Amino acid sequence: MEFKLDQAVGILSRTPGTLNHLLRDLPDSWTTRNEGPGTWSAFDVLGHLIHGEETDWIPRARIILKHGQSRPFDRFDREAMFEKSKGRSIPDLLDVFESLRENNLKALAEMDLTADKLALRGTHPSLGVVTLEQLMATWAVHDLSHIAQITRVMCRQYDKEVGPWKAFFPILGRE
Amino acid sequence: MEFKLDQAVGILSRTPGTLNHLLRDLPDSWTTRNEGPGTWSAFDVLGHLIHGEETDWIPRARIILKHGQSRPFDRFDREAMFEKSKGRSIPDLLDVFESLRENNLKALAEMDLTADKLALRGTHPSLGVVTLEQLMATWAVHDLSHIAQITRVMCRQYDKEVGPWKAFFPILGRE
Repeated sequence: MEFKLDQAVGILSRTPGTLNHLLRDLPDSWTTRNEGPGTWSAFDVLGHLIHGEETDWIPRARIILKHGQSRPFDRFDREAMFEKSKGRSIPDLLDVFESLRENNLKALAEMDLTADKLALRGTHPSLGVVTLEQLMATWAVHDLSHIAQITRVMCRQYDKEVGPWKAFFPILGRE
Repeated sequence: MEFKLDQAVGILSRTPGTLNHLLRDLPDSWTTRNEGPGTWSAFDVLGHLIHGEETDWIPRARIILKHGQSRPFDRFDREAMFEKSKGRSIPDLLDVFESLRENNLKALAEMDLTADKLALRGTHPSLGVVTLEQLMATWAVHDLSHIAQITRVMCRQYDKEVGPWKAFFPILGRE
């Protein structure tokens, strides 16, 4: 569907509240379990979203606006949260994410991204040439994909508990 | 993870608020598009969740408590919403779902489902013997799987808009 900045912001502005509703005060058994070795729990995903707010989306938009294609983005460490989130709690991470997102949406508004600006190009360290519009669309998709991931990971904690109903839920199947 | 009724209720009680945060007042372009012929939009999924509240979870629990295995559940029409939701809006469906869920959680509390009751068996029209505990676990999984579905469907509306980043999002790939 055609990209419109206000529609992307519609997603971005809702994600902290959605995750807050989904995760705050849930028993840890839902939020700290993953899908097996090398996979992420809801707790891990929250830390990953926070690291994105700090180092990915708005910093990259600034690089495009300031340097265009001449200065590639810094690489994004998608597993930084394994260290950074240590000792934190889900409510703490939700608060941090909400606050960072709020500030980043203010920064985004201040950029006043017209169609001309959205067409500007930057250089991704492994993907090559990308546009500012694609960066913004990816930010929204990244949010949605991680809500999908969190709910899938939670689903799978009841993989056996649903008994014969497992046959009706492709999302449970990993064997 | 071992089934505990209060943990399942933790999921069930949060879903209306989560969907409300995610979907209320979003532009229709996010909520009415699906993934192609034969697939569901967020609007369709909401209607499906409503039909479940009306005809599936609590009605089936009552059948188990009253008749055990002797009376099979009525079949659940998973596509009933295509007719039932006609002419309704997302905010309307969110309100209906919230209210039905609230009443159903009250009904659930009144059932006072002890371990003995949760072990009771019923007859699913196609899956055969199931327990009340499995029905309750499936109710929670059903919620989570449909939040995962809604966010996946929304993601895919930006399938092309993310440009080269598509390579990083397996959730976008359907070709």
